[in-house]
Amino acid sequence: MKTTIVGLGLIGGSIGIDLRKTGIATKLSGVELNKENAKRAVERGLVDDVLSLEDAVKADLIITAIPVNSIRTLVLKILDLIGENTIVIDTGSTKSQICQAIDKHPRRAQFVAAHPLAGTENSGPDAAFSGLFNGKTNIICEQEKSSVKALEVANGVFEALGMRTIFMDPVEHDKHVAYVSHLSHVSAFLLGQTVLDIEKDEKNIFNLAGSGFASTVRLAKSSPDMWAPIFEQNAEYLSQALLEYIMHLQKFQYHLMKRDVKELHRIMTDANRIRKILEGIELKQQPKQLIEK
Amino acid sequence: MKTTIVGLGLIGGSIGIDLRKTGIATKLSGVELNKENAKRAVERGLVDDVLSLEDAVKADLIITAIPVNSIRTLVLKILDLIGENTIVIDTGSTKSQICQAIDKHPRRAQFVAAHPLAGTENSGPDAAFSGLFNGKTNIICEQEKSSVKALEVANGVFEALGMRTIFMDPVEHDKHVAYVSHLSHVSAFLLGQTVLDIEKDEKNIFNLAGSGFASTVRLAKSSPDMWAPIFEQNAEYLSQALLEYIMHLQKFQYHLMKRDVKELHRIMTDANRIRKILEGIELKQQPKQLIEK
Repeated sequence: MKTTIVGLGLIGGSIGIDLRKTGIATKLSGVELNKENAKRAVERGLVDDVLSLEDAVKADLIITAIPVNSIRTLVLKILDLIGENTIVIDTGSTKSQICQAIDKHPRRAQFVAAHPLAGTENSGPDAAFSGLFNGKTNIICEQEKSSVKALEVANGVFEALGMRTIFMDPVEHDKHVAYVSHLSHVSAFLLGQTVLDIEKDEKNIFNLAGSGFASTVRLAKSSPDMWAPIFEQNAEYLSQALLEYIMHLQKFQYHLMKRDVKELHRIMTDANRIRKILEGIELKQQPKQLIEK
Repeated sequence: MKTTIVGLGLIGGSIGIDLRKTGIATKLSGVELNKENAKRAVERGLVDDVLSLEDAVKADLIITAIPVNSIRTLVLKILDLIGENTIVIDTGSTKSQICQAIDKHPRRAQFVAAHPLAGTENSGPDAAFSGLFNGKTNIICEQEKSSVKALEVANGVFEALGMRTIFMDPVEHDKHVAYVSHLSHVSAFLLGQTVLDIEKDEKNIFNLAGSGFASTVRLAKSSPDMWAPIFEQNAEYLSQALLEYIMHLQKFQYHLMKRDVKELHRIMTDANRIRKILEGIELKQQPKQLIEK
């Protein structure tokens, strides 16, 4: 398939690598406004060339992988430009706004609202790698509004990336990713900021941080350009999740000041239940052997 | 050296493995109140045998690796029992209380207050492994109160484990580990509890959690038996750190509700500074080749 990827960062670039590898993309073009990133993407072979949006929409398949604050305008523009045989897949981390925005568009059926749940704390075309999505979960929203052909194409793409797909309502999607994924990012960003703030002399962090600290704070390295718009779009649910988190922290602090070790112990034992779930996730995320062309 | 390790969990067990490997321990005994753990430690060869405390103190070197709420009583008892040539090293995660408790003991000079900064979210003798400490930092407090011989022995031990040692005042130690290490643990425990609490249907966590969530919440798997006493002993400093963290989270939530994307972006960019420090830590923690006997 003649494929265009709009946005050649970690997500778009990694999709490009594996769609070429698995033969889904026969010709692979990119659209990228950042000139330096466009150059690096071609140098790294993530895409064959970088085109203007007007040229790039003449494709069988268009995948958008850009910050969520730009998705609405861009996808609407793409749907206006494409012919009747082109399929468009969005991969953004929030889904309510985009689904609402394109709901009445005459080309709605050619669009698939997806969210492949994968990423690292790194960004840009140099962060892209083969296998990023392998073994992970993809979510498709409002599948009933996509045509059978569009879903078939999307299915081919996400299978080629090694993903398993589940279906969710866009509002449910945004709510649950706020709780599970976005909250982790906020907790890590603020842990990083707090420790940097208290330990003005960075030597102490350097000397006293172990692998536990590194693991907990890792997501604080993530891109603000990508995450600020996600948090804004998901502000309601994320805010609820944050308030719950703050409440649990305040309770803990209260029991700590009362030296109520029994209650602290009980809370930690309760939190230990996460072990079973993490083990399940590890088991689930066994990478598949991608079928290479 | 005839060596005794008191407490055969992750820390004590891992010390045993590498002290035997590097020839520091010629005879290696353990003291362990939990019968099942004592049996496993001998089965795994972490120690040669498990003795009563009264028999086990007849050693050249005694290392304590037990929950911090038991250290004071136990170390005082050990110092009462040992002869003039035995060296005692404690490895607990808080240092003020133990340093204060043994300050006037006639055998104070034979004691070294250490804190090897290493660990995993697992516990017990089955979690012990060779190399746990390799490349990591060890802290010694009040080195001026330990004899030259005691420091020499301790130095030999921590070098054999592949650690570099720095020196800190015990109060400073407790303050800074509260900020850097203990706060990370609390943030992970409560993140785990919050997500489990909101997502009562665990299927959502299972489906939506990526590697980012797993990394941020990993420490929530840690042992409450070990951490509850640490938090209690370090309640003042940990509470300060927690209040700072809560304040940062509340500010973030405020800007989130005001949709102040610029400010959210600024906070995340500020937190991104942690990247440089984490890279420094990775470079610093290159494991050494342990000199095996």
